[in-house]
Amino acid sequence: MGHLAEPLRGVVAPVFTPFNDDLSIATDLYTAHALNLMEIGCGGLAPFGTTGEALSVKRDERVNALWALREAGIDPAKMIPGTGLCSYGETADLTRACLDLGCAGAMILPPFYYKGMPDQGLYDWYAKVIELVGDDLRLYLYHIPQVSGVGLSVSLVRKLRQDFPDQVVGIKDSSGDWENTKALLNIDGLIVYPSSETLMLESMALGAPGCITATANFNAPAMVEMLAAHEAGNEEDAALLRNTIAGVREATVKVGFIPVPKAYMARKTGDSRWANVRPPHVQASEASAQTLQKEIDAAR
Amino acid sequence: MGHLAEPLRGVVAPVFTPFNDDLSIATDLYTAHALNLMEIGCGGLAPFGTTGEALSVKRDERVNALWALREAGIDPAKMIPGTGLCSYGETADLTRACLDLGCAGAMILPPFYYKGMPDQGLYDWYAKVIELVGDDLRLYLYHIPQVSGVGLSVSLVRKLRQDFPDQVVGIKDSSGDWENTKALLNIDGLIVYPSSETLMLESMALGAPGCITATANFNAPAMVEMLAAHEAGNEEDAALLRNTIAGVREATVKVGFIPVPKAYMARKTGDSRWANVRPPHVQASEASAQTLQKEIDAAR
Repeated sequence: MGHLAEPLRGVVAPVFTPFNDDLSIATDLYTAHALNLMEIGCGGLAPFGTTGEALSVKRDERVNALWALREAGIDPAKMIPGTGLCSYGETADLTRACLDLGCAGAMILPPFYYKGMPDQGLYDWYAKVIELVGDDLRLYLYHIPQVSGVGLSVSLVRKLRQDFPDQVVGIKDSSGDWENTKALLNIDGLIVYPSSETLMLESMALGAPGCITATANFNAPAMVEMLAAHEAGNEEDAALLRNTIAGVREATVKVGFIPVPKAYMARKTGDSRWANVRPPHVQASEASAQTLQKEIDAAR
Repeated sequence: MGHLAEPLRGVVAPVFTPFNDDLSIATDLYTAHALNLMEIGCGGLAPFGTTGEALSVKRDERVNALWALREAGIDPAKMIPGTGLCSYGETADLTRACLDLGCAGAMILPPFYYKGMPDQGLYDWYAKVIELVGDDLRLYLYHIPQVSGVGLSVSLVRKLRQDFPDQVVGIKDSSGDWENTKALLNIDGLIVYPSSETLMLESMALGAPGCITATANFNAPAMVEMLAAHEAGNEEDAALLRNTIAGVREATVKVGFIPVPKAYMARKTGDSRWANVRPPHVQASEASAQTLQKEIDAAR
């Protein structure tokens, strides 16, 4: 069964990465936003995921930003940053830097340039990362085939978990495929995070510790409340909250998780820098942010 | 019309990257192979393209390997290395290092993690790279949507060429779509390399300086000979050579451009290290290499 890593529980936020007008990381906004998410009651942070524009941010920028979170008072043991790059060597270097900082683990994409690689090749790649990083790696696989173009089959995940029980501790399943999430939840000792808060309670009933969801960036309070209601046995309240949460998510899914929600953050906070995105993303219009705000307000 | 970069002419080889058994770059094999390709009569080298397993090789490894080629006596002005990564910052850093080494330019993929980005976002990304690298950048766009998952539309290429006439000098079109290649050849002053030697002469008739083709790694002599026959006006010889060349390519396309051809190189040279590939690729079997050898021999 191997090592049982202590998972981050509840709502884990894949933090947006705010940028100044020159597109450098806005460290002040970043730390304030992260602190706020933890104060709201998030169980942890997953910085530099897809929503955090990870692949648009240099490795040293990522590490510096994580240090800034730590210096701002966030326990790095509450963070699972994304560290997946295309080469196993660069992935291992970045992962090592995150572990040295005290992070609970790292969320690692499969190598996503070459498509259609056999499971054996993906297995060998992760094995190389584990070998290079060392035994203290706590690896969360990151399955988001609709973006990365490279998926992780359930049988590959099972084999990695079996062969590296102390290192391969979990997976974030962003496929949105509930059958896939359920199959992963059946793998012995594997920590599984679904990517939608609408499936959080169902996943937790099957053993998941919580979820990692992009909308936590601006809707975490309702999710934390839903979870509290559920844990207090108030299933009626939990169901009502779930409906509003589903409405907010639906409004967001329609416009995508990055530019429009960031422009919405700019409206909400009054800090226009929130609307900045790095290319290849394009800043959303004020009008689209307004529409999202209206739809979110209507859902609530 | 802008700057007219002097293109590399004829057969440009996207050099395989050979690895030792510990998967470090086999610099001895790499330099010997590159020198051999230039001696055969290739017009230049395109190291660290898709075939060169670029995305499996760390940035510093790429730069060190290019320095090794230069120290082995290859004029860096004959090299257009691939430098495209997902972030504009890391792409610019790697590109700068290649220009400082004396390379003729750099071949740059679009940012390939996020899919379905608008042309404006891809434009902004290249503009950022150009801004960060500086005016001496000679940029060859790299269009290989079937691998990268992100294509470059003809209208985007035209706009980049128009707005950065001194920097955006060319494109490698690996789409295999002849209509697309012809449309690109219509863009004023743009250097266009098709990726198949079977289209080399047709492309050259429309203004291309040559082609960049993976099979040059083991079939460059025939390609150089075909081009010489064509340039000497021996169209009958050129046509015969083209037939054998097309047969070799067809045999290769069936098995893919990396593991099986590398295993075939191991058979041909007697150096088993040639068969090594980095994950996520998986080493090809001896049997598959033997089959490819038979088919290549039959085509010749």
